[in-house]
Amino acid sequence: MNEGPSISTYVDEQRLWQRHMAMAEIGATPKGGLDRQSLTAEDIEARALLARWAGELGFACEMDPIGNMFIRRPGTDTNSAPVMSGSHLDTQPAGGRFDGISGVLAAFEVLEAMEQSGVQTRRPIEVVNWTNEEGARFQPATMGSLAFLDNGRLNAFLAIRDAQGIPVHQEIAAARAALQNVGPRELGAEVAALVEVHIEQGTILEQNNKTVGVVTGIQGVRRFLVQVHGEAGHAGTIPHKMRKDAFQSSCKIVDALNEIMHDPDDLVRFTIGRFMVVPNSPGTIPERVEFTVDFRHPSQLTLDRLGNQVAAVCQKHAGPCTAMIEEVLTMASADLDNNYVPDLIRKSAQSLDMRWMDIYSPAMHDALNLAQICPTGMIFIPCERGISHNEAENVEPSHLADGTKVLANVLFELAMM
Amino acid sequence: MNEGPSISTYVDEQRLWQRHMAMAEIGATPKGGLDRQSLTAEDIEARALLARWAGELGFACEMDPIGNMFIRRPGTDTNSAPVMSGSHLDTQPAGGRFDGISGVLAAFEVLEAMEQSGVQTRRPIEVVNWTNEEGARFQPATMGSLAFLDNGRLNAFLAIRDAQGIPVHQEIAAARAALQNVGPRELGAEVAALVEVHIEQGTILEQNNKTVGVVTGIQGVRRFLVQVHGEAGHAGTIPHKMRKDAFQSSCKIVDALNEIMHDPDDLVRFTIGRFMVVPNSPGTIPERVEFTVDFRHPSQLTLDRLGNQVAAVCQKHAGPCTAMIEEVLTMASADLDNNYVPDLIRKSAQSLDMRWMDIYSPAMHDALNLAQICPTGMIFIPCERGISHNEAENVEPSHLADGTKVLANVLFELAMM
Repeated sequence: MNEGPSISTYVDEQRLWQRHMAMAEIGATPKGGLDRQSLTAEDIEARALLARWAGELGFACEMDPIGNMFIRRPGTDTNSAPVMSGSHLDTQPAGGRFDGISGVLAAFEVLEAMEQSGVQTRRPIEVVNWTNEEGARFQPATMGSLAFLDNGRLNAFLAIRDAQGIPVHQEIAAARAALQNVGPRELGAEVAALVEVHIEQGTILEQNNKTVGVVTGIQGVRRFLVQVHGEAGHAGTIPHKMRKDAFQSSCKIVDALNEIMHDPDDLVRFTIGRFMVVPNSPGTIPERVEFTVDFRHPSQLTLDRLGNQVAAVCQKHAGPCTAMIEEVLTMASADLDNNYVPDLIRKSAQSLDMRWMDIYSPAMHDALNLAQICPTGMIFIPCERGISHNEAENVEPSHLADGTKVLANVLFELAMM
Repeated sequence: MNEGPSISTYVDEQRLWQRHMAMAEIGATPKGGLDRQSLTAEDIEARALLARWAGELGFACEMDPIGNMFIRRPGTDTNSAPVMSGSHLDTQPAGGRFDGISGVLAAFEVLEAMEQSGVQTRRPIEVVNWTNEEGARFQPATMGSLAFLDNGRLNAFLAIRDAQGIPVHQEIAAARAALQNVGPRELGAEVAALVEVHIEQGTILEQNNKTVGVVTGIQGVRRFLVQVHGEAGHAGTIPHKMRKDAFQSSCKIVDALNEIMHDPDDLVRFTIGRFMVVPNSPGTIPERVEFTVDFRHPSQLTLDRLGNQVAAVCQKHAGPCTAMIEEVLTMASADLDNNYVPDLIRKSAQSLDMRWMDIYSPAMHDALNLAQICPTGMIFIPCERGISHNEAENVEPSHLADGTKVLANVLFELAMM
């Protein structure tokens, strides 16, 4: 490991924590969490705060057509591709203060640490805030990094609407109007390498008393949107044998999906997180139900085998109703150890004398997309009792600093390559 | 039957239909139905139209503290209790143009017919528009007639909020402000008799080629609100054996309820019409689910026996979650043939040479509440293919007129008693 400028010594635990607390005020919920869904007024306010911090340090800030933000510290070789680091500022509707946010702020802390150290790197380093990682408001999740990889998907993504019918393009226009000092930028770019810091969202680091996890791979995910169409009717008059009850058919479908997804080893992750009934009135037989199926497994073989059955199972168990199934998100499992970044992270953690371990990521991240186009690594930090996607999500300030110090030396190494 | 003034000859089919079409413009949906939930701006506009029509004919219009509206044609005996007739102008979120509305407009047509005939009745006749019969926006259904029966429930009803948190009292204040020519009136009153015209919401009249149904009884209903509490968590990381998934527990509860409600005779009506998930995000294990159970049966014994099991079944099958159950609506089955009004309806239909038959009402109506305090009858008219609580709901203009003619003579008879 090049110990050279030891950027990590410039990482300031208190400054990093204060930035988290400032970000946590935007979209704060009474229970101490955040509701800052992608491209809402709150998300735009968080973006503005990040852009202001960038401006105060003299860094350029740009936004691409899907709303991904980039803060750039130039390198000496102006023709070289940048090293990127970041995550996302959007949250779940009842989310926490660290999921995604820590990845953006850790990368930003490294930029400030480098500025203070006065070090110059060959490659530029860019802090990135990916749009709509959570996929809570707009489907699919990780929309920003998916578009970054394949700009052919841009127009379809811009047309996607939230539950209120507001399209992505309208909110991106609002963000652009609000972020006057953030310049435009093309979608996609060559990336030399990517490192993402993220909370673990599990209990492995905590149980092993480690503060740094070196991510060896990321579990793939397949997400489906199921629409069940029946016929509305009066709850008091229509005999059951004449009903086309979209709710009851959906329950039968869920039972059948539970059956194929049942796994004695408890490795399958199968979640129905969103479920909406129309017209949703106590005295009316439901006409339509729309629900999501989120399915994950470490093995790509299992992802293929079980995921490929979802549509047929839904259709087979729709009873008197009809079911339409669309696969809205497909991310293959990634093996990160087939590139050199995880090893750089190990060496950095080792040289800083951190308590570290290898770890597998069952949660998906934008890094899973980026791994398709560049050497990619992830650094996990522990989160209290593994609680995440929950307002109670919590992190130790010193663990945040540990992960950021490891990141600092890794980004320096990568930017000197 | 007193053939005397033959009020029925003054019933004008075209005028009655045109009033339906004018009402159908307020809250119209693209699919030809109505979304005019109780005390919304649309409902208030419909109320204003009814009040305007009343004013044009010189009738006084009053509103009580729960928002029930009364249009009065005076009788010669100023101390006598009124005969009432009416239904409701509110609709389901994707409802039709006749459910409830026809009952109000048929009664109003009779008032205009009486005015044209110049007849004087001993008792006053009042057209009533009950507040929130549907219970789609505010729970419970038939809120207005429930409060009319028991003014001790008024304050609790006024505090009830819709899904957006807006309380009933705020919307009633808005209605009062918008209806400047509608005077105040106390809640509750002595009622000499009540007759409600309503679409059948079934296919029995149609199948038997009848245009008038004399309702012999009304099926009771019990409605429950079930809240299932679990724990939010990340869809990719939390093993199933550690989950407290409020959606999955709710599905198990629904399966168990389906089992106890299963009825080979298909007389049980069991509907889960509203089902809401929190936070309702594809990547998050649901923390909370709230759903309604609507249960009806002609036999009070069965209503008691099965209804009394609902809470225990929900709690037993909640798995790692907890279930809270509240009974929000309890209406006993009513036998109308124990009073003299149905017989007056039969005689009126007979003397007018209508195609009529006795019929039982599986749907609940405000009349089910009024039957507890006064002689009560209902007149059903056919609706196309039995489709109701549906935007496709439809009625023949001549059938509307037939039911209204029968009503006219019955109201006259009752008002002369």
